[in-house]
Amino acid sequence: MTMNNIIAQRAALVEQAAAQMGKNIYNGTREKDQTARTENQKEGASSKVCTLEEAIRKSGLKDGMTISFHHHFRAGDKVVNLVVDKLAEMGFKNLHLAASSLQDVHKPLIEHIKNGVITEISTSGLRGELANEISRGLMEKPVVFRSHGGRGSAIANGDLHIDVAFLGASSCDAAGNACGFSRSENAKSICGSLGYALPDARYADKVVILTDDLVQYPNTPNAISEHDVDFVVEVESVGDSSKIASGAIRDTKNPRDILLAKQAAKVIINSGYFKNGFSIQTGSGGASLAAVKYIRESMIEQGIKASFALGGITAHMVKMHEEGLIDRLIDVQSFDKVAAESLMNDPMHKEVSASEYASADTPGSATHYLDIVILSALEVDVNFNVNVLVGSDGIIRGAVGGHPDTAADSALSIIVCPLLRGRIPCVVDEVTTLITPGATVDVVVTEYGIAVNPNRPEIAERLKAAGLKLVTLEQLRDHALKVIGQPDPLPFGDKVVGVVMNRDGSVMDVIKNIKE
Amino acid sequence: MTMNNIIAQRAALVEQAAAQMGKNIYNGTREKDQTARTENQKEGASSKVCTLEEAIRKSGLKDGMTISFHHHFRAGDKVVNLVVDKLAEMGFKNLHLAASSLQDVHKPLIEHIKNGVITEISTSGLRGELANEISRGLMEKPVVFRSHGGRGSAIANGDLHIDVAFLGASSCDAAGNACGFSRSENAKSICGSLGYALPDARYADKVVILTDDLVQYPNTPNAISEHDVDFVVEVESVGDSSKIASGAIRDTKNPRDILLAKQAAKVIINSGYFKNGFSIQTGSGGASLAAVKYIRESMIEQGIKASFALGGITAHMVKMHEEGLIDRLIDVQSFDKVAAESLMNDPMHKEVSASEYASADTPGSATHYLDIVILSALEVDVNFNVNVLVGSDGIIRGAVGGHPDTAADSALSIIVCPLLRGRIPCVVDEVTTLITPGATVDVVVTEYGIAVNPNRPEIAERLKAAGLKLVTLEQLRDHALKVIGQPDPLPFGDKVVGVVMNRDGSVMDVIKNIKE
Repeated sequence: MTMNNIIAQRAALVEQAAAQMGKNIYNGTREKDQTARTENQKEGASSKVCTLEEAIRKSGLKDGMTISFHHHFRAGDKVVNLVVDKLAEMGFKNLHLAASSLQDVHKPLIEHIKNGVITEISTSGLRGELANEISRGLMEKPVVFRSHGGRGSAIANGDLHIDVAFLGASSCDAAGNACGFSRSENAKSICGSLGYALPDARYADKVVILTDDLVQYPNTPNAISEHDVDFVVEVESVGDSSKIASGAIRDTKNPRDILLAKQAAKVIINSGYFKNGFSIQTGSGGASLAAVKYIRESMIEQGIKASFALGGITAHMVKMHEEGLIDRLIDVQSFDKVAAESLMNDPMHKEVSASEYASADTPGSATHYLDIVILSALEVDVNFNVNVLVGSDGIIRGAVGGHPDTAADSALSIIVCPLLRGRIPCVVDEVTTLITPGATVDVVVTEYGIAVNPNRPEIAERLKAAGLKLVTLEQLRDHALKVIGQPDPLPFGDKVVGVVMNRDGSVMDVIKNIKE
Repeated sequence: MTMNNIIAQRAALVEQAAAQMGKNIYNGTREKDQTARTENQKEGASSKVCTLEEAIRKSGLKDGMTISFHHHFRAGDKVVNLVVDKLAEMGFKNLHLAASSLQDVHKPLIEHIKNGVITEISTSGLRGELANEISRGLMEKPVVFRSHGGRGSAIANGDLHIDVAFLGASSCDAAGNACGFSRSENAKSICGSLGYALPDARYADKVVILTDDLVQYPNTPNAISEHDVDFVVEVESVGDSSKIASGAIRDTKNPRDILLAKQAAKVIINSGYFKNGFSIQTGSGGASLAAVKYIRESMIEQGIKASFALGGITAHMVKMHEEGLIDRLIDVQSFDKVAAESLMNDPMHKEVSASEYASADTPGSATHYLDIVILSALEVDVNFNVNVLVGSDGIIRGAVGGHPDTAADSALSIIVCPLLRGRIPCVVDEVTTLITPGATVDVVVTEYGIAVNPNRPEIAERLKAAGLKLVTLEQLRDHALKVIGQPDPLPFGDKVVGVVMNRDGSVMDVIKNIKE
């Protein structure tokens, strides 16, 4: 080798230094790759590009390990089913599936659970047939439910160790730079922020990116860095973008939702927190998402601008940002195509991880700077406790999401909730499942009046002064009872089918199996 | 507590679930912070904001630990001296100072070394009086030199464990979101990319951000996330931006540098790698930085566009990016104000960490996709080995930088180097210190001709065909000898004052002390 002379000159000293440091001596054999990258930036230059089966084999996945997924395609997700089908085909058993959330579309998991491929699930939510079956006792081990911030923390602190993450991306280069949008002409499936996938990318032992748009290097700006990626798998489709803005995050046209949204807007405007520089988040659910629309005019009239909007970012927020009414957007999940495109193009629209969004860990997160959050509920009880996970029929049909995170950290948390959904009362004596403790809930807005937590007398005063109709939750409960009578107690069994974790990693509640 | 009823209902099951999972039961005592963030987004809402002394105390720093710094302000840096002065004042001893590089401005470290405050240094480079003293044997322990990619890897794999990182930022909010630019009116010290600080922010046990522009939350887009930050310290100044584009990265007006740059451009254009989609990096040094200017016209004439420019980003590159000649900029270090501003405003101008830039680790880095790099040298020897660290007088006066990283990973590495600097020959028999192995160097451009590594006969053919004058390094060495005669051997002693690590963590060379 050409450097041998030089090393020989100082050989004894190099040897001594290496010995003292416990290091090897440079062997001088590095070969230079003389291939022009120009020609092969799409695939050839990277040994990371492989088939799903190869990625699984090379990842070292074994029976009993934990695999993870994100839910940014929501009802349009195609990655979970694709990967778990393949794992089943390859003969894996006893896997722990740790998704940021699961949807109706994941019904095929039922068979994989029955066949012993998946024996453990961690998630934020469950919906549809899978949720029905699990509520009835499908699994031996209870599903562990965590909030988005709680999941971020659990992954960071090792409580939820991920062996192999399978993360769908809207575009990715051969090196692994991935994101939820694409600048290529072949863009297929756009989801915007990959916020819930970022803790997985950072902390999982092995990271597999699945993409339906393998683009030229460098795919910048990227959400996930090549440096965190082990394998890149090209697939037909990672998700159906058109199904993102559906279900709980569709733009509502329901008159009751619009009424609730307008009432919530009045609460915000008169709460004392509606000041220049305020910050806001709207959770999923038609009424909460819509609320931001109805504060827009007051912002313009009073010359009030928001410093940031947080969380699930919507087209409404993007519009207000572009109008100069909201300075920055902090996006853990893009709720529609407009939000996804804004994230791609606007430097003031920032993608954050679930941990940066809502972690309860010491280093903090955006929720700690949140003034106002508007959230929905399946049930609220007379102690302001909220349930967003289990229906009043005892069937799991929702998600913890960022609900308890934002309620706890915001200065003002507002729950919008109809008093009745058909024959179902939504203000009750005791919530079926405790998701968000009443101590962190400030105001409940229903179509029959607004209830303010007795811990917040100053808020009640301000709303009264503004002419809003205040009621107690007991009054609301009684009103519901009067209309539809006392419902029968739910036929719960004694099997624990779900455990609800608080964001600090403690156990908050359990969900029992429902019979019939 | 209000949720006691609920928990009581299912108390036994909750207790059982918690026991099985080894978790606590949620204690229900979370207190809600009702303070509007609107009023105190700058300081009050965060317990992270404190004085430097408080940050040091709270960080748990102890004698013998490792502290780290970045060098994005280059000769204008004010953070290293400020922090080490404070540490000395507080009585700390035996600290290991691990900087991404050190400059002339760090001369005050000499006293701190003499007083035992700093007893170990890791860095990429050393210059000025500090370098002189160290070259003469100031320190007991040898300085450990690593490339930028090597440092990134060493931090990631634990070889270089950082206890407390002290990172200067051009703006930061009270939560710790920090970057090298600022959108505020009070912007003082702008450095652009914080690429070399990002491994420290991610892996150090404690991270202290020092800033002279404490801005409103949220300071997005941020380079360093609040999630990685423990303390935020407001200081008078973190650096003098006007001194960034000085020294090795000034825009050259030297006619010889311009000649070398033009020759390098000819080599690039005729190398076979000048194709649509090519990628390029120009290292520090006037001639290498300038080379990109002289390929611009050929790019326009031939309709060739670059996919990306990498590394230290300059105003020239930004201009060509804005003209559409370079698709993306991948920025580990902004070499001037124009680059820093482009980084702030242009989503296609991406900030990367030292690891994402040039790490030799398995997951890869941008250098693996680099077609062409142009680098400077203090010395090249007849075996194409390069020295960019130690002067021909035996005194340390440079930096390893990304030199060996990019030479090894690029498809074509070009060294621009004058044959003589005054009475000093730059093409020699054996380099004083081995930094970049000749096996990774393809072409050496001097004002007396171009030498092509015999490993690359196809390059030699192409350059010859283009009418370029090819010579051997032996011919260049002989020419230099003829002009200035054989220099006396350097009066090295037997003390090892520096150890040069290869980017893979092995020991490549040692630097001996120089006597008078």
